[in-house]
Amino acid sequence: MTFRATILTLYPEMFPGPLGVSLAGRALRDGRWACETVQIRDFATDRHRTVDDTPAGGGVGMVLRADIIAAAVDAVADERPVIAMTPRGAPLTQDRVRALAAGPGVTVLCGRFEGFDQRLFEARAIEEVSIGDYVLSGGEMGALVLLDACIRLLPGVMGAASSGDEESFESGLLEYPHYTRPVTWEGRTIPEVLRSGDHARIAAWRQAMAETDTRLRRPDLWERHEGARVKPPSGARREKD
Amino acid sequence: MTFRATILTLYPEMFPGPLGVSLAGRALRDGRWACETVQIRDFATDRHRTVDDTPAGGGVGMVLRADIIAAAVDAVADERPVIAMTPRGAPLTQDRVRALAAGPGVTVLCGRFEGFDQRLFEARAIEEVSIGDYVLSGGEMGALVLLDACIRLLPGVMGAASSGDEESFESGLLEYPHYTRPVTWEGRTIPEVLRSGDHARIAAWRQAMAETDTRLRRPDLWERHEGARVKPPSGARREKD
Repeated sequence: MTFRATILTLYPEMFPGPLGVSLAGRALRDGRWACETVQIRDFATDRHRTVDDTPAGGGVGMVLRADIIAAAVDAVADERPVIAMTPRGAPLTQDRVRALAAGPGVTVLCGRFEGFDQRLFEARAIEEVSIGDYVLSGGEMGALVLLDACIRLLPGVMGAASSGDEESFESGLLEYPHYTRPVTWEGRTIPEVLRSGDHARIAAWRQAMAETDTRLRRPDLWERHEGARVKPPSGARREKD
Repeated sequence: MTFRATILTLYPEMFPGPLGVSLAGRALRDGRWACETVQIRDFATDRHRTVDDTPAGGGVGMVLRADIIAAAVDAVADERPVIAMTPRGAPLTQDRVRALAAGPGVTVLCGRFEGFDQRLFEARAIEEVSIGDYVLSGGEMGALVLLDACIRLLPGVMGAASSGDEESFESGLLEYPHYTRPVTWEGRTIPEVLRSGDHARIAAWRQAMAETDTRLRRPDLWERHEGARVKPPSGARREKD
């Protein structure tokens, strides 16, 4: 089955772009995924192909019109989820990526300017997704990130050598640190346990390192991980309020 | 002043890629930023230009060698910060983006395979940064995101029309929802307050909406926002432990 990606954008020339290279590029040529772009401007109704207008209530910038964007979304509507890349969206997670990669594909809607008319999300089943707490010049970079994350999980893309099961976030933890040859570099030696050949000890060390690094580097992830493992006494966790 | 971006990668052909189009592309042609790539493989020392080796302690995949990567980093070392894109890194924030954009530029190190030999980060001043809690096929997408976020903030890139001050995350809140013409679309009308012409009422409504949407959509952001505003009684906030 081919994973079908349709990207609604004002900049179709950005795709497949970096997704045409390396792992994703080979998968594209192998037909494991397909990349189709739709120029949003083709759904404008005036001579100047206008897709935006000034914000109601005043303010800087331009807002993408709900009627034009809805027409573009309606034109490609099928069984695939429609995801709009926007900083107001739900943070992208590896769980969401895995679910998308297991499906028929995705339609990605890329915003520009100040964003979309909010009525679009009331009137259509569009999932608002954010790739992180920073602001980009448009949704296109987010679309590339979302697609890259999905494509590497498609059957046959990574190969058996790298199942992804031990990677960061798959277990709710950061991945343990890696080492490789040379054994000693600039006076620094690979941890002894990794050279012991004792597989049980190595596995235990890696698990302990994953836990330690997550606790130190990402207390937010750690708290979620612990919350999922040990059900806290009721009322003890503020973030679920 | 030109913001200088140097990208250390196994796939230099991915750059500038989508950053050569639209806002960032125009800024590149205007000399507001410069894009240089360095092929990591050029720092390999064997005939096969090997940059990786198997993980110490066993396991799938390959690990980027500390000695090769350090040689590549040393070759471009100057006053600019060096940022490695890795899921084990600190989450990218708009504050970090703003600080980077105010400086001379950035050197971005793109990982591939299972990641870097950890000794690299002990031996060199390299900042580990993650763009989000998902796994990508390599650091290149992260580099594109990081650079796009920085470039749009460079002087003259967005123009006076869009200062970015009211955007999501700039105030620690999501941005308020936008609306534009048509006034009525599919039976949905732009909120009355935005058509009132009363600037004080509009500003108050937008602030209230930004707070409500942040609280409902991103309780994690909301808690951080409230924590920064109102200093809690000592010991009341677990995440600072």
